[in-house]
Amino acid sequence: MSQFDIIHKDAAGRIGKLTTPHGVVETPTVMPVINPNIQTIKPSEMKDFGAEILITNSYIIYRKDELREKALKDGLHALLDYDGPIMTDSGSFQLSVYGEVEVTNQEIINFQQKIGTDIGVPLDIPTHPDVTYEKAKEDMDITIERLKEARGLVKEGGMLLAGPVQGATYKDLREDCARELSDVGFDVYPFGAVVPLMEAYRYSDLVDVIASAKKGLDPVAPVHLFGAGHPMMFALAVALGCDLFDSAAYALYAKDRRYITSRGTYHIDKLKYLPCSCPVCMAHTAEELKKAHNCTELLARHNLYVTFEEMREVKQAIWEGNLLELVEQRCRSHPRMLEALKQMTNYSSWLEECDPSSKSTFFYCGPESAKRPEVLRFTKQLERLTIKGSVLIRPYPTKKDKEYDNVMVFKAPFGSYPQDLAEVYPFNAEVVRTPDYESLETAFLNTIKLIELNPEATYTFLMRESFVHPLVEKLSKMDNVTVVPPKSE
Amino acid sequence: MSQFDIIHKDAAGRIGKLTTPHGVVETPTVMPVINPNIQTIKPSEMKDFGAEILITNSYIIYRKDELREKALKDGLHALLDYDGPIMTDSGSFQLSVYGEVEVTNQEIINFQQKIGTDIGVPLDIPTHPDVTYEKAKEDMDITIERLKEARGLVKEGGMLLAGPVQGATYKDLREDCARELSDVGFDVYPFGAVVPLMEAYRYSDLVDVIASAKKGLDPVAPVHLFGAGHPMMFALAVALGCDLFDSAAYALYAKDRRYITSRGTYHIDKLKYLPCSCPVCMAHTAEELKKAHNCTELLARHNLYVTFEEMREVKQAIWEGNLLELVEQRCRSHPRMLEALKQMTNYSSWLEECDPSSKSTFFYCGPESAKRPEVLRFTKQLERLTIKGSVLIRPYPTKKDKEYDNVMVFKAPFGSYPQDLAEVYPFNAEVVRTPDYESLETAFLNTIKLIELNPEATYTFLMRESFVHPLVEKLSKMDNVTVVPPKSE
Repeated sequence: MSQFDIIHKDAAGRIGKLTTPHGVVETPTVMPVINPNIQTIKPSEMKDFGAEILITNSYIIYRKDELREKALKDGLHALLDYDGPIMTDSGSFQLSVYGEVEVTNQEIINFQQKIGTDIGVPLDIPTHPDVTYEKAKEDMDITIERLKEARGLVKEGGMLLAGPVQGATYKDLREDCARELSDVGFDVYPFGAVVPLMEAYRYSDLVDVIASAKKGLDPVAPVHLFGAGHPMMFALAVALGCDLFDSAAYALYAKDRRYITSRGTYHIDKLKYLPCSCPVCMAHTAEELKKAHNCTELLARHNLYVTFEEMREVKQAIWEGNLLELVEQRCRSHPRMLEALKQMTNYSSWLEECDPSSKSTFFYCGPESAKRPEVLRFTKQLERLTIKGSVLIRPYPTKKDKEYDNVMVFKAPFGSYPQDLAEVYPFNAEVVRTPDYESLETAFLNTIKLIELNPEATYTFLMRESFVHPLVEKLSKMDNVTVVPPKSE
Repeated sequence: MSQFDIIHKDAAGRIGKLTTPHGVVETPTVMPVINPNIQTIKPSEMKDFGAEILITNSYIIYRKDELREKALKDGLHALLDYDGPIMTDSGSFQLSVYGEVEVTNQEIINFQQKIGTDIGVPLDIPTHPDVTYEKAKEDMDITIERLKEARGLVKEGGMLLAGPVQGATYKDLREDCARELSDVGFDVYPFGAVVPLMEAYRYSDLVDVIASAKKGLDPVAPVHLFGAGHPMMFALAVALGCDLFDSAAYALYAKDRRYITSRGTYHIDKLKYLPCSCPVCMAHTAEELKKAHNCTELLARHNLYVTFEEMREVKQAIWEGNLLELVEQRCRSHPRMLEALKQMTNYSSWLEECDPSSKSTFFYCGPESAKRPEVLRFTKQLERLTIKGSVLIRPYPTKKDKEYDNVMVFKAPFGSYPQDLAEVYPFNAEVVRTPDYESLETAFLNTIKLIELNPEATYTFLMRESFVHPLVEKLSKMDNVTVVPPKSE
């Protein structure tokens, strides 16, 4: 298998080092898509933007005599005039668009090996999201067959071989496919056919696809979210465990006069100001950019700058241990992204298993923070707490602390925890004074669970006026609990 | 009064043009603070970063013979080698730090006029947030006296005169002060002594201070949030109606090796990656920047780039009509900022009066969106709706629509509105499929209010499984309402 070393983690995201024949790539990263026919920006310039690996299409090269002959004679790297790692696609995309391609799986795998690609892709079947289960399964079975064939053709030690995970939007198929490919053994696992989901803003479905496929893989396997290149969703996808991305978007969007930002996309004609400090945006006003004769190229350059800028932001967040905060911020760029964030909270139990147990201060960002892995971990650990005697549960220090055998702090969204842990991660969290409903929900549920687990103790709970939640009634009706109404604060 | 033309609005934010003796300034903008003694970055370079106006300190110039003489002889603009607008502070800051200054209000006002400043500031009293009401009132009265004196010394038509609004954190004092100064008439209204609030992350109190002072002013008066220069809070402060900011932060933070972003501040020694595409960050890796002999200067430059970048982002958002979405995103940078956002929703009624009635698509960003001015406006307008006969209220189109006299759409956070308005702003909002509790709260309250206002009609309400809220029970108990349980969706 490929050498992929994980050097730092946060949520299911990680900083990794992927070794390829042409050098080591630090992930997460995005591979600019190079069209072998038209190059808005030369491959040799790509390192200036921050690129560590490129991706191009071996099928386009294979089909065009001039390109094929040069690639076979001088190699792929000479053809593109680029000496770093290059991944090549196989024609699967063309298959998904035109319904057929004039090459076999075996031919395109052999061709990729001959031209010296660093990561080759078999001719898998990208299944459209909305097909029937039967069709998705049928396509997936063909994909798995072809991948096994490819695995037989590619010796380990040379070209890395990608094993694209298919299965449309059927979670069990994605997971099964990933598991089966894992057993065969590939170097990189692209998650395929997700572009239609992204085009339709179905980010919530994308979360399901990624999480399901990830569950079927070895956690340390490198994952490529094939076709994903908009920086708006990098934080989310990385937090779910994606390592490689590819961007044709930088050039395609530029052709449509669209200006990418980490918060979304602007049509350049609607921009009055350029909200960016990249070399393009510092050298032009919005008006100048609109009117520039090389506007498409300038936009492509800007788009690449911000794409890599966001990837650096994501990587820094992994190092700092606040990737999930970045995800919560970025997911407010569009309500469909917010739905994806909510969907991600359904996978918190899985994320909790990946997540480092101690990191930077937990920042509460909204209702979804109440379902973060750190909070869920505390819920799971409640059973380990043994509490006896008289217990004061209070949201703030009081003079009466000394009158009780135990003092616990109440802090939403966590619930109640021993005072000794107040300065310890994650209880040293920065939260809001007036908790959201969802945050109180988790906190009260955890508190009630804790009391039920320790029924011998007696509890005094100090209320606050801002703690408005129906569970307060349940709490106050418990036999061994006294709820003290709030003084006016 | 100053010529201040408002050319575009969103929430209480606006794009304005402020005319000064040395040219027109487009607001909102930030004034880089120039220390007359030490200049990390030369004033003449400031336009390259996007600066349209600078601010320096006339008291420092006044106190140092060499500077004073040159300023009196050649003028302030020659002293700084800058030909655009310059504002000068008066020594108030020194007064707040050292408790006294060696100049009178009259002397410093006359000095500012003589050296040709564009916007002069009287010697007001910056009152610390946590003083008693009596002390705050006493200071405020002195400030008002001095401002009146200054107003008598400065003829209209030359130097613009700033009238700093004081009053500590007492909302009534801030509003009274602003109203009294309004009656006297100043060209720019700085909101003073807010730095201690920002230093202590008391952004929620800052919202109170801004909103209170704004209420006492003519809405078209230009406002300067004195001492505010961190880009993280620009969107929030602009949305509340601030037009001018000043940044000493760019240089002070750099001196402490701190790297500013619109999401917060990093210590440079903790950065592994530079999440920015400005000229400094494109020319250096994080490691190179840390070790650079001129690290302080480079950081100051980066800090300035991102400061103006964020201001362009804010201005673009005003043009697009989605400033409040930007505020909701930025306020997730820190839980104290999130508290400020929640506090801002308490001023929605005031914001609603400022807010343009139609703008870009409303994007739901979280519980606070349920209290946005656009939602509140609909609540206020419910009384204008007259509904008769049989009414179907449903969250999605059904085949039974034809069986009713009226069809209304239910969409959280708005509530129920006539189907004809579905594609009209703000009801064409992009929202989440599973509404937050707070969003359902507003939607059900509005629906119940609508039904109570139109008691003669009969209502059929189609539920959804995700509509979990105690008000459902209240709705279902209304005499003229039939709640249809959800089919499994």
